[in-house]
Amino acid sequence: MSHFRDHRLQLHLEKNKNRARLLISCADQPGIVAAVSSYLSEQGANIVESNQYTTDPEGGMFFLRIEFECEHLSSKKEQLENEFTSISNKFEMDWKIAYADELKRMAIFVSKGEHCLLELLWQWQAGDLIADIPLVISNHPDLRETVESLGIPFYHIPVTKETKKEAEQKQIELVKKYNIDVVVLARYMQILSAEFVKEMPYRIINIHHSFLPAFIGARPYERAYERGVKLIGATSHYVTNDLDEGPIIEQDIERVNHKDNAEDLKRIGRTIERNVLARAVSWHLQDRVLVYSNKTVVFE
Amino acid sequence: MSHFRDHRLQLHLEKNKNRARLLISCADQPGIVAAVSSYLSEQGANIVESNQYTTDPEGGMFFLRIEFECEHLSSKKEQLENEFTSISNKFEMDWKIAYADELKRMAIFVSKGEHCLLELLWQWQAGDLIADIPLVISNHPDLRETVESLGIPFYHIPVTKETKKEAEQKQIELVKKYNIDVVVLARYMQILSAEFVKEMPYRIINIHHSFLPAFIGARPYERAYERGVKLIGATSHYVTNDLDEGPIIEQDIERVNHKDNAEDLKRIGRTIERNVLARAVSWHLQDRVLVYSNKTVVFE
Amino acid sequence: MSHFRDHRLQLHLEKNKNRARLLISCADQPGIVAAVSSYLSEQGANIVESNQYTTDPEGGMFFLRIEFECEHLSSKKEQLENEFTSISNKFEMDWKIAYADELKRMAIFVSKGEHCLLELLWQWQAGDLIADIPLVISNHPDLRETVESLGIPFYHIPVTKETKKEAEQKQIELVKKYNIDVVVLARYMQILSAEFVKEMPYRIINIHHSFLPAFIGARPYERAYERGVKLIGATSHYVTNDLDEGPIIEQDIERVNHKDNAEDLKRIGRTIERNVLARAVSWHLQDRVLVYSNKTVVFE
Amino acid sequence: MSHFRDHRLQLHLEKNKNRARLLISCADQPGIVAAVSSYLSEQGANIVESNQYTTDPEGGMFFLRIEFECEHLSSKKEQLENEFTSISNKFEMDWKIAYADELKRMAIFVSKGEHCLLELLWQWQAGDLIADIPLVISNHPDLRETVESLGIPFYHIPVTKETKKEAEQKQIELVKKYNIDVVVLARYMQILSAEFVKEMPYRIINIHHSFLPAFIGARPYERAYERGVKLIGATSHYVTNDLDEGPIIEQDIERVNHKDNAEDLKRIGRTIERNVLARAVSWHLQDRVLVYSNKTVVFE
Repeated sequence: MSHFRDHRLQLHLEKNKNRARLLISCADQPGIVAAVSSYLSEQGANIVESNQYTTDPEGGMFFLRIEFECEHLSSKKEQLENEFTSISNKFEMDWKIAYADELKRMAIFVSKGEHCLLELLWQWQAGDLIADIPLVISNHPDLRETVESLGIPFYHIPVTKETKKEAEQKQIELVKKYNIDVVVLARYMQILSAEFVKEMPYRIINIHHSFLPAFIGARPYERAYERGVKLIGATSHYVTNDLDEGPIIEQDIERVNHKDNAEDLKRIGRTIERNVLARAVSWHLQDRVLVYSNKTVVFE
Repeated sequence: MSHFRDHRLQLHLEKNKNRARLLISCADQPGIVAAVSSYLSEQGANIVESNQYTTDPEGGMFFLRIEFECEHLSSKKEQLENEFTSISNKFEMDWKIAYADELKRMAIFVSKGEHCLLELLWQWQAGDLIADIPLVISNHPDLRETVESLGIPFYHIPVTKETKKEAEQKQIELVKKYNIDVVVLARYMQILSAEFVKEMPYRIINIHHSFLPAFIGARPYERAYERGVKLIGATSHYVTNDLDEGPIIEQDIERVNHKDNAEDLKRIGRTIERNVLARAVSWHLQDRVLVYSNKTVVFE
Repeated sequence: MSHFRDHRLQLHLEKNKNRARLLISCADQPGIVAAVSSYLSEQGANIVESNQYTTDPEGGMFFLRIEFECEHLSSKKEQLENEFTSISNKFEMDWKIAYADELKRMAIFVSKGEHCLLELLWQWQAGDLIADIPLVISNHPDLRETVESLGIPFYHIPVTKETKKEAEQKQIELVKKYNIDVVVLARYMQILSAEFVKEMPYRIINIHHSFLPAFIGARPYERAYERGVKLIGATSHYVTNDLDEGPIIEQDIERVNHKDNAEDLKRIGRTIERNVLARAVSWHLQDRVLVYSNKTVVFE
Repeated sequence: MSHFRDHRLQLHLEKNKNRARLLISCADQPGIVAAVSSYLSEQGANIVESNQYTTDPEGGMFFLRIEFECEHLSSKKEQLENEFTSISNKFEMDWKIAYADELKRMAIFVSKGEHCLLELLWQWQAGDLIADIPLVISNHPDLRETVESLGIPFYHIPVTKETKKEAEQKQIELVKKYNIDVVVLARYMQILSAEFVKEMPYRIINIHHSFLPAFIGARPYERAYERGVKLIGATSHYVTNDLDEGPIIEQDIERVNHKDNAEDLKRIGRTIERNVLARAVSWHLQDRVLVYSNKTVVFE
């Protein structure tokens, strides 16, 4: 299967070697776009895609994502960033430039349920998710073969109440050792500690199996069945210290009816979960998600 | 506009003068369908549509809705019902026969927001909602002209904390006087008392402006905005004494994004609300909704 | 009902008296955004929303829509437009500035089917569609009362094979007399001549009752029923001289099943049609739709 | 991964050893349900699920699917079928009984595109698709490893204009040798001959990458892009001798916009295709699909 990945990845790198994304958040004020676009123009960069959002025309926050092309980009990165400093200082911007040919390094955490993991691996192989996946971590051994058959290292780190702290320590070490940019909890059934979350602010993505804020917490499908809802859903969000309360990246639903029992809801839900998680991860990998006030701006 | 209604209603009554719906709930047990279908066959009735549902093949509840045609139905109603008693007794059924040419009498309660009322009136005029609407009751005078221009009596019954009890008394009197079968709360912003609800068990339909159980209670769009959800929805349910906790009949959602502020959510939500409420009301009017364990079976 | 409209319209005009939309189409080339945003910044304008699209990073077309606020806009319009000429000349732009407080003048054409007309009138009254509606034209008299009851002039212009040319002449005169900006065919069952279409390029919006290009032409619901599709849809598009072939603005679908006969499809379709048409009209009124190569760019 | 399949399959067989599905098509006439349900009742069978549909209350076709449980079913099959003959003769029925523990044998045909194949294999492994998959046939060698790693025989049968007839002969032999009940064309890019289709009437399921009847034939995504549609879709249908004209089993769509080029449409389409095909196959495997007049009745 991997020839797809190699081929499409090659194409992607080729096509994107001169492409970068500039992300900016700051207080809204006149002249931002003029300053930024003039700067890019002076650098010989051509704007390919641009999205902006102002929370409120009067005194709100301003968010900007510009995707640009610039010849000989690889040799110009330092200069680009240095010269942007004067603009960013003037407007007191939070900002970064992400280069499309520098793949993000993604670790996937999983328990026993395979569907979300498989969807990510599959889209990755198909070249639809552009990232490196240096490792998969699981608290169960079951999915080792699946993962290793794709040439991805699999770490089995069991977690019990007693070993939880130690297990997390190992996870954090691996995340650091492998230089991980983003952690995806692909139905990982453990709650991460505040310490772990602090390590990777807005860089841990979870999938919750309900349309949050409905059915926060455990057993959402069972509770959806008991409540008799006519829609079930899934929610992908960044992990914060408040369980299931982090900024929502993506949600979706499917219709169900009285004939569907809790097992049916789980089966139908599996397809929603994997599609929602894959979309959220894809947007994150393309630097399309910005966070403010516990919400996301998604520049699709 | 009303010529549509007259024409389509005429067609409906013509087409349905020999049509009835048999609804049954009982403990599941062998031989129910055989007994019921043999009985119908003996009466010369032809089954046009049939839906059944068993909660659990072992020891569950059984629900059946059969729509049948029977020549000279109008002269046979009493006989049909009498002869069914022996079957219903044997299986200890809850049952009823509803005749498609006996229009249900629907009262609409509304406050100031017009969109749900207008949708119902419009579908009613178009002949898509088959019912009689003998009156509209509102705690505000604003929609009088709209309602009366269609030839429907409009009762303005103001509600304040002090007059609430008295106001409900008037409402109940009107509901009784007009022989109302079903009350639709089309964004009626008052909570009905337990006494009122008891008068019409599972015959009061509400529209709540969120995908319940998310955002139970007040200001759901504002709270949806604050939470940063990517979907907003609406829920139509039967009213019980637990606010927003009654059996759900229908739900739907629309996608929203970071650009939509609370006012946008309300605007988008208005279309969801009216479509969801209209579907729920339509199913109720066609006797397609059965209730058990605070859930609905909807035989669409 | 109209108090909603008056109130929301008032709010709109108040809120938008300093707001305008700049629309640009031209060949993609470096420096466009820099030039435009610097110009706006110099005029003291603040960009509130901005959308751009490039068909192809190499040698494609470039489209831009900027919504901006500018104090004392009403006294600056001429100056704004004059000074933009040097930029527009440099980049050989097609461009316009639309002022949010200058309401577009919309004529609605309708035959006997009322649902699309009613949806537009209703959203207009609710203040959700911001436009003036100086007249409604119909080839049938049926909807006169509905239209006139809202204070909108209704013109009944019958169309037969013999009188078609003459009837269109009258329509064009009315459109000119009333200074119409956009014509909406709300299930108007006549085909406009090439002469009429030429009068209003990309300013006539139609609703076709299928998900085009499926079921082009007559009787789409009947043909959908015969084909046994599991989805039915509607398409709103600009009218060109090729029937049902103009640039698509918006489409949507609903699920149907084997139980739905052609009449059911029509009933379900009515809700799709009116929602799709209303969204398309709303986007047009907000200058969110640009046309190229018989397609639309919709800056939602 | 396969432990899921083994476990869930075991559960399925256990739970369904006494379960069967009775499917009936005939001219509508009074007394059918009474006769059938009485017969089942006499055999000690309990109806678990029942769906029926009449094309037209007057002189139409009648379709029935009954799922029933019957103790000691395995020893009663012959008797059940024999005794049903008198009823089926009386009403001139087309009928069959399918036993839930006799897995259907499914052959998958694929070319190079892997996504539909993978979805089927994955749902099969997860125990969501209950079937045997004795072989996969492809005109390309690329997916051999993927298929064989799951223990499924893979047959590479190249097809050229010259060898097409011979290749099909081999395919038919394999289908017969392996006793195949249903052939699934999971993006198999060859057109089957009339001879092949005749071998398996309404037992060959295809996925077409458009919402038929739009974009019949080749290159649907490219044509969708050129037409500027706002929705793209996929259609699963039974194969007949008229290309892309067979009875539609399931369709679905996703929204797209002007930013999506033909490659994007393909990527988005892959998810629609695999979901639509998997649902269609699942319904076929559960004997929920009946065909008449080139349409399907789907008893979901």
